[in-house]
Amino acid sequence: MPDPTTFETHPSRYKHWRLTTSGDIATLVMAVDGDHPHRPGYELKLNSYDLSVDIELADAIQRIRFEHPEVKCLVVTADLDRVFCSGANIYMLGQSTHSFKVNFCKFTNETRLYLEDASGSSGLASLAACKGTTAGGGYELALACDETMLVDDGNSAVSFPETPLLAVLPGTGGLTRLVDKRKVRRDRADVFCTVAEGIKGKRAKDWGLVDHLVSRTKWDETVAARAKELAAKQTVTRGPAFALPALEPKVTPDKITYKFVDLSFDASARTGNLLVKSATDVDEKFDGSVEPWSLRAFRELDDALLRLRFDYPEINVVTVRTSGTGEIVKGCDERLAKATTGFAREIRLLQRRVMKRFDNTARSLYAVADRDDSCFTGSLLELALGADRFYMLIEGDEKVAVELSVANTGFNTTSTGLSRLESRFYGDKKQLDKVLARGTEGPIASEEAEQLGIATVAADDIDFEDELRIAIEERASLSPDALTGMEASLRFVGPETLETKIFGRLSAWQNWIFTRPNSTGEHGALTLYGQPERPQFQWKRT
Amino acid sequence: MPDPTTFETHPSRYKHWRLTTSGDIATLVMAVDGDHPHRPGYELKLNSYDLSVDIELADAIQRIRFEHPEVKCLVVTADLDRVFCSGANIYMLGQSTHSFKVNFCKFTNETRLYLEDASGSSGLASLAACKGTTAGGGYELALACDETMLVDDGNSAVSFPETPLLAVLPGTGGLTRLVDKRKVRRDRADVFCTVAEGIKGKRAKDWGLVDHLVSRTKWDETVAARAKELAAKQTVTRGPAFALPALEPKVTPDKITYKFVDLSFDASARTGNLLVKSATDVDEKFDGSVEPWSLRAFRELDDALLRLRFDYPEINVVTVRTSGTGEIVKGCDERLAKATTGFAREIRLLQRRVMKRFDNTARSLYAVADRDDSCFTGSLLELALGADRFYMLIEGDEKVAVELSVANTGFNTTSTGLSRLESRFYGDKKQLDKVLARGTEGPIASEEAEQLGIATVAADDIDFEDELRIAIEERASLSPDALTGMEASLRFVGPETLETKIFGRLSAWQNWIFTRPNSTGEHGALTLYGQPERPQFQWKRT
Repeated sequence: MPDPTTFETHPSRYKHWRLTTSGDIATLVMAVDGDHPHRPGYELKLNSYDLSVDIELADAIQRIRFEHPEVKCLVVTADLDRVFCSGANIYMLGQSTHSFKVNFCKFTNETRLYLEDASGSSGLASLAACKGTTAGGGYELALACDETMLVDDGNSAVSFPETPLLAVLPGTGGLTRLVDKRKVRRDRADVFCTVAEGIKGKRAKDWGLVDHLVSRTKWDETVAARAKELAAKQTVTRGPAFALPALEPKVTPDKITYKFVDLSFDASARTGNLLVKSATDVDEKFDGSVEPWSLRAFRELDDALLRLRFDYPEINVVTVRTSGTGEIVKGCDERLAKATTGFAREIRLLQRRVMKRFDNTARSLYAVADRDDSCFTGSLLELALGADRFYMLIEGDEKVAVELSVANTGFNTTSTGLSRLESRFYGDKKQLDKVLARGTEGPIASEEAEQLGIATVAADDIDFEDELRIAIEERASLSPDALTGMEASLRFVGPETLETKIFGRLSAWQNWIFTRPNSTGEHGALTLYGQPERPQFQWKRT
Repeated sequence: MPDPTTFETHPSRYKHWRLTTSGDIATLVMAVDGDHPHRPGYELKLNSYDLSVDIELADAIQRIRFEHPEVKCLVVTADLDRVFCSGANIYMLGQSTHSFKVNFCKFTNETRLYLEDASGSSGLASLAACKGTTAGGGYELALACDETMLVDDGNSAVSFPETPLLAVLPGTGGLTRLVDKRKVRRDRADVFCTVAEGIKGKRAKDWGLVDHLVSRTKWDETVAARAKELAAKQTVTRGPAFALPALEPKVTPDKITYKFVDLSFDASARTGNLLVKSATDVDEKFDGSVEPWSLRAFRELDDALLRLRFDYPEINVVTVRTSGTGEIVKGCDERLAKATTGFAREIRLLQRRVMKRFDNTARSLYAVADRDDSCFTGSLLELALGADRFYMLIEGDEKVAVELSVANTGFNTTSTGLSRLESRFYGDKKQLDKVLARGTEGPIASEEAEQLGIATVAADDIDFEDELRIAIEERASLSPDALTGMEASLRFVGPETLETKIFGRLSAWQNWIFTRPNSTGEHGALTLYGQPERPQFQWKRT
């Protein structure tokens, strides 16, 4: 395998951003170091970005939430004179595998949704201060901020040049954010998305593409004033501050080991095994003095999921097991729910984000409860409810069981806005209520869990091992593409949201377009970008 | 060009279905004639279907609505002993171009939605009576019916074998209908979609995959009794009966001419020109004695759109013009809205379906008002509101204008459930109300239409022609794939529904999967179906 991807970083090690805070304002300055791309082979000119830039952005947003609770507004800006951000690096895209491109876009989308989540739930507003060209993914980043300020210098424009220049889509949520979030009229959005040079000045403001238009001379003071105003509007308080410690997993070619999470692989079988362990004691403090299990375990899970996506593309099926003591997980969930600090709220929000990452991971996920110390309780039961299937072993002494906690009763929503239990019993309120009521009465052993609809399959030890083995082997033998499309359709029942539109509709179209000769073929526009040769298109519409 | 596709047929000419009616029950018997496929090169064995089978099904549903108002329940069944329907013909799919496959799936999806529309709005329930194997698209057809009855013979199963056997999705709405319409638990849906042989008997019923399980001995009487019960529940009455006359367009390689619709092509420019003409007199009667313009013109438009999709795949941009007398269109719309017959309601529902077909047509649509007799009024204004852009010429005497009618005020919804005006002003209720209020005060000339946000661009005659010409040339030069993805994202702002999930999420994934080597490559599962060679998969997940 190639070098493992490291998603952990720290502001002191950033190559592409500078993070500073002053009072209730944080400023994140994009200053991409062209000579330090994620992989060799291209230069990150003009504040174009790649995965390494995105990893730092995700880290910065997370750290501001946990480590700088005093910050109420984040200003995202750049230090180039005429450029805010020119979007994803085209040469990087041109050189990447399809699998990498798709996962890169997904990670970028998730990071942008986290900006919106920080604003919606964490009292952290954001202002994109675009003092120059704001193109493609750069404009998509601006759209993810609460407000966008564009310099009015007769030159600087916002643009989505992807379709005219590269024959692909603005694929990190831009199309959806234009019409659904910002309510740009759809015929204007159509015009905007085909004008490679973009739209500037008064028209950009009139069309709702930007919120503020500011001259160069008044730029700094206006940005500062607006950031103050946005900060002053925030009512949610975070804190106390907690400095996120490094995770530092042990990584070997076939296993990634954290404190509470193991992810191992059988490359020849195309399978992975995820194990999440409970704490050994109930989390007591949410005051920033220690890192609770509720935070640590989910941060580790998050890191493991990202490594799985990027570094193990041929793993088709992942079994998900848990171990430990259900009572402890339940205790952790209850303490966390009752804790009134902003820090505790941040942990709950992080758990929710990590579980969404789990749902959006394009691997077949089979949860398996077959150990005496299996521990699908509360926040760990969410793993089983988010998985495609849940296999439970029936034991005579009913040691294998699941248990509900407060973590299953509503806060932990999927991208659709439904909880995982609501998704499972979509359209069957009676059964949902029955399960929730039963949940207050203690552990539910395998046979009953199957009857209630929590387990997909419960089997006794005569059949269990064979049934599970065959199910995994069969799944691992199926086409990964068909499985991805199938899972993306079945996992997100019910209402659609901005998030599901991004991951379901927009990403699905972009996946298709990325595979088409018109973009990535020998004569495709993405392939030939920056070269004198003009792309040649196949003209058939679909 | 190849032979034009004919979408018109008549029960007397059906090759693949037998339509009979008896009292308030119609029976549509699938009896596919294997020797008459849509194109030579494959045999339609075991009630597998292709476009020719689907065209007849669409015709039958339409005719029952208009010509058999007494029918309250449609029984869809088959005359083979052990097979209901084995789904889309795999060899046909394997031989088809990508463009054809996608349009075939889209048409099939539309027809299935029409079954649901007939049940929801027209007092025509449907019962799928599956007396044998019900596989793939055959089961998707059953899911589109109100209820599904499966024979309990120890052998007959419902199944989605697409993913395990062909490495594609159940792509005509099946995945969405399983979890969103029928509320099958998503983990069970996951199991069901990977078991090639399907699920039969009690388990099929317990899982909600079918509604009724009936033995062979009681089959006929139970089907008849349940159809009677469904018919008795209907409260919407249709009629009087109207026999749909043939459209019989004149078709040449570069023009299709109907009574009220012209569609011409400039193949070298990859452009098409659609013209819809108003009636010469206001429709007076909705009693079935004559065919009103409101019906005829939209049936012609529907036929033209289907021919555009299937027979002119390289046409990238279509301009949409109207001509005639706005007052007459307005009169037609008002008479139609006020008419109390079921026939009038059927016409309104047909107009709504045709306009959805327009929205779902993967071509760039530019509405153009540049003629003195331009007639974007009411039901014809919907064309401009559904288009990607609307160009209007500013004339001194304000002859070029648009006008609202009752057809723009809510009934004519898109797949999202919003009207086209609501879509245009999504999130801007104030502007929507302003436009609706202004609509009651007569024609709106180009300049005002632009100010109100109805026109995308209004320009005077010095600039108009050049601006439009350049816009069309530029659009026609862009990648058709990127445009399809872009338009599919921008056209459907706001809420998502079963329909938009089918066309946006499920179809987008299927489009992608159809292009992947794992299904359609040299060693792909779809390519190798029926051959001894095993498919070879590329294992990378995305």
